[in-house]
Amino acid sequence: MKEGEIMKVGLLGATGYSGAVLYSLLKQHPNVTHLNLYGHNTGTSKKVFLETAIPAYLNEHLELQEFDPVAIMNSNDVLFCATPAGVTSKIARPFIEENFPVIDLSGDFRFKDPAVYSKWYHKPAAPAEQLQKACYGLTDFQTPTTHYIANPGCYATASLLGLAPLVIEKMIIPDTIIIDAKSGVSGAGKKPNTSNNYSFINENAWLYKMNQHQHIPEIVQQLQAWNKNISAIEFTTTLIPITRGIMATIYVKAAPNITLTKIKQAFNKYYQHDKFIRLLPEETPSIKEVTGSNYCNIGLSYNEVTNTIVIVSVIDNLMKGAAGQALQNFNQLFNFPEEAGLPLLPLFP
Amino acid sequence: MKEGEIMKVGLLGATGYSGAVLYSLLKQHPNVTHLNLYGHNTGTSKKVFLETAIPAYLNEHLELQEFDPVAIMNSNDVLFCATPAGVTSKIARPFIEENFPVIDLSGDFRFKDPAVYSKWYHKPAAPAEQLQKACYGLTDFQTPTTHYIANPGCYATASLLGLAPLVIEKMIIPDTIIIDAKSGVSGAGKKPNTSNNYSFINENAWLYKMNQHQHIPEIVQQLQAWNKNISAIEFTTTLIPITRGIMATIYVKAAPNITLTKIKQAFNKYYQHDKFIRLLPEETPSIKEVTGSNYCNIGLSYNEVTNTIVIVSVIDNLMKGAAGQALQNFNQLFNFPEEAGLPLLPLFP
Amino acid sequence: MKEGEIMKVGLLGATGYSGAVLYSLLKQHPNVTHLNLYGHNTGTSKKVFLETAIPAYLNEHLELQEFDPVAIMNSNDVLFCATPAGVTSKIARPFIEENFPVIDLSGDFRFKDPAVYSKWYHKPAAPAEQLQKACYGLTDFQTPTTHYIANPGCYATASLLGLAPLVIEKMIIPDTIIIDAKSGVSGAGKKPNTSNNYSFINENAWLYKMNQHQHIPEIVQQLQAWNKNISAIEFTTTLIPITRGIMATIYVKAAPNITLTKIKQAFNKYYQHDKFIRLLPEETPSIKEVTGSNYCNIGLSYNEVTNTIVIVSVIDNLMKGAAGQALQNFNQLFNFPEEAGLPLLPLFP
Amino acid sequence: MKEGEIMKVGLLGATGYSGAVLYSLLKQHPNVTHLNLYGHNTGTSKKVFLETAIPAYLNEHLELQEFDPVAIMNSNDVLFCATPAGVTSKIARPFIEENFPVIDLSGDFRFKDPAVYSKWYHKPAAPAEQLQKACYGLTDFQTPTTHYIANPGCYATASLLGLAPLVIEKMIIPDTIIIDAKSGVSGAGKKPNTSNNYSFINENAWLYKMNQHQHIPEIVQQLQAWNKNISAIEFTTTLIPITRGIMATIYVKAAPNITLTKIKQAFNKYYQHDKFIRLLPEETPSIKEVTGSNYCNIGLSYNEVTNTIVIVSVIDNLMKGAAGQALQNFNQLFNFPEEAGLPLLPLFP
Repeated sequence: MKEGEIMKVGLLGATGYSGAVLYSLLKQHPNVTHLNLYGHNTGTSKKVFLETAIPAYLNEHLELQEFDPVAIMNSNDVLFCATPAGVTSKIARPFIEENFPVIDLSGDFRFKDPAVYSKWYHKPAAPAEQLQKACYGLTDFQTPTTHYIANPGCYATASLLGLAPLVIEKMIIPDTIIIDAKSGVSGAGKKPNTSNNYSFINENAWLYKMNQHQHIPEIVQQLQAWNKNISAIEFTTTLIPITRGIMATIYVKAAPNITLTKIKQAFNKYYQHDKFIRLLPEETPSIKEVTGSNYCNIGLSYNEVTNTIVIVSVIDNLMKGAAGQALQNFNQLFNFPEEAGLPLLPLFP
Repeated sequence: MKEGEIMKVGLLGATGYSGAVLYSLLKQHPNVTHLNLYGHNTGTSKKVFLETAIPAYLNEHLELQEFDPVAIMNSNDVLFCATPAGVTSKIARPFIEENFPVIDLSGDFRFKDPAVYSKWYHKPAAPAEQLQKACYGLTDFQTPTTHYIANPGCYATASLLGLAPLVIEKMIIPDTIIIDAKSGVSGAGKKPNTSNNYSFINENAWLYKMNQHQHIPEIVQQLQAWNKNISAIEFTTTLIPITRGIMATIYVKAAPNITLTKIKQAFNKYYQHDKFIRLLPEETPSIKEVTGSNYCNIGLSYNEVTNTIVIVSVIDNLMKGAAGQALQNFNQLFNFPEEAGLPLLPLFP
Repeated sequence: MKEGEIMKVGLLGATGYSGAVLYSLLKQHPNVTHLNLYGHNTGTSKKVFLETAIPAYLNEHLELQEFDPVAIMNSNDVLFCATPAGVTSKIARPFIEENFPVIDLSGDFRFKDPAVYSKWYHKPAAPAEQLQKACYGLTDFQTPTTHYIANPGCYATASLLGLAPLVIEKMIIPDTIIIDAKSGVSGAGKKPNTSNNYSFINENAWLYKMNQHQHIPEIVQQLQAWNKNISAIEFTTTLIPITRGIMATIYVKAAPNITLTKIKQAFNKYYQHDKFIRLLPEETPSIKEVTGSNYCNIGLSYNEVTNTIVIVSVIDNLMKGAAGQALQNFNQLFNFPEEAGLPLLPLFP
Repeated sequence: MKEGEIMKVGLLGATGYSGAVLYSLLKQHPNVTHLNLYGHNTGTSKKVFLETAIPAYLNEHLELQEFDPVAIMNSNDVLFCATPAGVTSKIARPFIEENFPVIDLSGDFRFKDPAVYSKWYHKPAAPAEQLQKACYGLTDFQTPTTHYIANPGCYATASLLGLAPLVIEKMIIPDTIIIDAKSGVSGAGKKPNTSNNYSFINENAWLYKMNQHQHIPEIVQQLQAWNKNISAIEFTTTLIPITRGIMATIYVKAAPNITLTKIKQAFNKYYQHDKFIRLLPEETPSIKEVTGSNYCNIGLSYNEVTNTIVIVSVIDNLMKGAAGQALQNFNQLFNFPEEAGLPLLPLFP
């Protein structure tokens, strides 16, 4: 598409965290002129307005329309799905059949193998033939090859961007990858529960889902696509008392003859012209340096004594880890400028 | 100015909190094409780059230029000063003499009476004749009358916007105003000290500067401009463990024959078409509903039993309380659209 | 009772916040040798152990016993009830009939008038004749007059201790009391909901229940007991992002001829020998100075210009505002040393 | 010593975080009847009182006495030093010569080799012959062998307690240890600086001192004492927005034929009768479960696919990681009950 061209955009699930952020980005995108919201809990007769569901969006007096695939395709040029796991696997068929552009922020279409999805998500997967029609949308490494884009998970994005140069260039010993990821509370969604209760998580840090997190197979699938020798990773997730943000601290053993200079060259090769990845000159990244932005900041170090490379990769889980990357996928799919609709700087302080 | 017209903008003090936020707004303002940064600590030979002072702004490789009034006026169409108290009182003269547009975020030019400034700021004031050339820039009530705009203080903005309709319409008993203001930690600036130390203020709330806050005379001066019968206010400030945001909870006694309906009518009269003030349908505002935005949200209640009106006014202290309002003043001064450069929605969650 | 004497103590509701804190205090009380826990949701067959309900209490392998009044009275010398509103009104009868000592942390027995309770708690009240058998346990002003002690509410404790000297000594204009109270999140209990969700309340402040908080009539009832001329107060509650703590900022108009010296004398008169009330030499109290302790810290100022006295009273809502004061009531009732079982210093930092 | 016996205790550095916590513990220790405070900045004529330095300790009207070794030894039975690095190396000599009991919370006497200290602390070390007179006080594994006890560092305590059973029992591949430690802000002391500034660290996580933390050689020295094959560790420290607490997430490769059952047996062997180490039945520890207590909680998992053991060890850095363990050392040195003076339960919530 050319600049100046206008788009009608549908958004399913605007009342969740990712959906709400996506709404705010789409609202300031220069090419998006129509924005239609849809609910995925059909059958309820109660009208829902965006401003009611999200008081911070007071005066955004848009009603959530009922979910109807045909109507959605007639009224829009593209559909974003910011839905919980298990929704799009049930509703994607008509869009896929019509080859209608969909950007899906959920995990439902990230795997090629339905069995992997079922095992890790504990839900029925979409049919294999539908999964084949979807492409994985890690924007810094892939441009869309189909019209159904599976937007990557937040942990997966931070981890994969941190590992990509070394994995693709075969600079590490394959099965030595350990990812110690720290995440803000918004990553687990909006619904009140024991672990997002303020009195629980404030002044706390909680390691959860040890070796059971559903982003593990997503990371492994992509690492294998880059390097067949990788078969498994060690992956822990620790909830820390912040609202937004992920830090993935990645430990890997260097392949023989690797130096810090070579490591930095590899990262420069892939990222020096990348608009949304910033390599730190010093080795100490912090989450807040990316909060509110679509940046992924990466810091590097190499300890010769232990032959360990440490890569620290930070993102805002709701931006580069969800809505921001979804907008990048939208911009790529329709040939808009890469940063259209995206804030140019993090929120500081 | 017309849309499409371009501006060269100078910014003094970009490395402080307000200045940094202002920089991020100016960067996305459609009419600002040149942005020059200046330091106010002249005489140091060390080069300072924005990205070094603010790591979150990595890749903003702008150097802070030395402060030189003539050079500044030659290179720019306007100068923003995001400086601590006591700076612009010393450096404003050449700009005022040349009638060069200045938007000053500090308190130095907010008072007509130099003695008031000296008393509350414990610093020498600018000369009275210079103070006369400045106008107070509470954007929702004033458009610039001179080229030197004194941008209001954060507490003052929240308090004045909450009180204006009732004070102007003479609906309250004059000297019954009590303002219990709560503020985030960024309000006191970037320099580390005992009270912004994390281990002090986290899990804490601290009432400070009881009846001694320098925003008291600023609020009183403007209230008196609206209603001569007001002579004093009771004003407390409590630091709470958040980075951004102010809540001003205002208690006033209603004049005779006032009802909640009349109160709401007064607020509607002044604010229903105001782009950046949102009246809450329910009476329970929260700070986070405005964080990252230029909004002031206002909630109202009237207790007939105690004849007390409670107005709750919330802003982001660095946006509507500093950089956001400064940009509004810029837009007003140069006839740009009111919301140019300003984000349309708060950061959520 | 004499020192060295031992007590068997029952505790109903140990798994809530107040109950858990009470458990930790009782455990280190030198005279408490037996501690029996009871659940108030009878009829469930599932065994509940304290350590399961509260992982921080790992190894406290006590089972919650089924609620049975006769068994409880047979096995214990006293019963603490740390139950939500609406529980003890239903179960208190046998204990009251037997004149068995009960310390009730809920609001159910704080009022003399059942209609007041029903109106503000939206629940059926205990019968008036039972309410007559209960005494209000504001420990710094009352020693138990019956065996059923209604332990005061957290907001009520902070507010009443801040107001008592001036109200009793008639040093204020009666109906000018405004209380702006700030509270931590634990005050609303342990059950996850929208307002204790981390992503909601972190970086936020939220004014809730404007003029509708159930502690209003409790405060007014006690103020009237001290001074019949008081008929109403203005009272707001703002939730701030801390786990524990309350700050009550109280504004009152001084009666004629009052000076700061007289105000301080009044506070000294009542509190200088009070072990758990600390008068601040300077006027700026902070919540964290009492966290984890049973202290109430009070700061004072008087503004002659506005004739306003500001009293700032801070407590730990779960200690002096709940479990700590309950233990003080226990110590008073059984003649143990006032500070038995209570920590001597706040948690710092 | 026997129960009932009384002690006179000196405390150097009571105004810092560790010292203040130690003061609060000593104050409630049943055998400590006299508590003398000393300052280590001699030569200043200004009197310092504890309550002035720490407002939370209002009414603790103790004056800090001037530092004088002879006077200290005459007036006390033991001296605690809660001093910054570089103090005790200069002042320890007279105490060591007199064989006077000292418990030193700083790092100055933790190494046998002065060169190691100088290299990692960037300060001159105490003389080697003095270092020989000190013993390392990891209380769960060592009882004092000399009268000068070097109390372990906070990160070292969490890491060593998590590793000890597997290292001593030779159940891991020696040089595969990776420790990803998360720490609260109080760990870096009380002095305001850029990294403990609220607006910096709130809503943030910051990886600092990559491979440069001074606790690395302390951990390695003790691991080598247990198992000579260990020569190096990989160790990162991430500051998270909490005041107190450390989580050490430890990744190690299992030696051949290791199973989760064997791992658990090893931990049970060393810790099942340890009063202050709690093994979690489930594998998800959280920091807050130990806050305010002297506990170290440990969770375990073993991933057969990656042959990785993950040990998660959490402590309160100011208790088990500083003052609490120092009191344990005191109790061991003088044969008091292990838990004398220590709180029995964490602060909850």
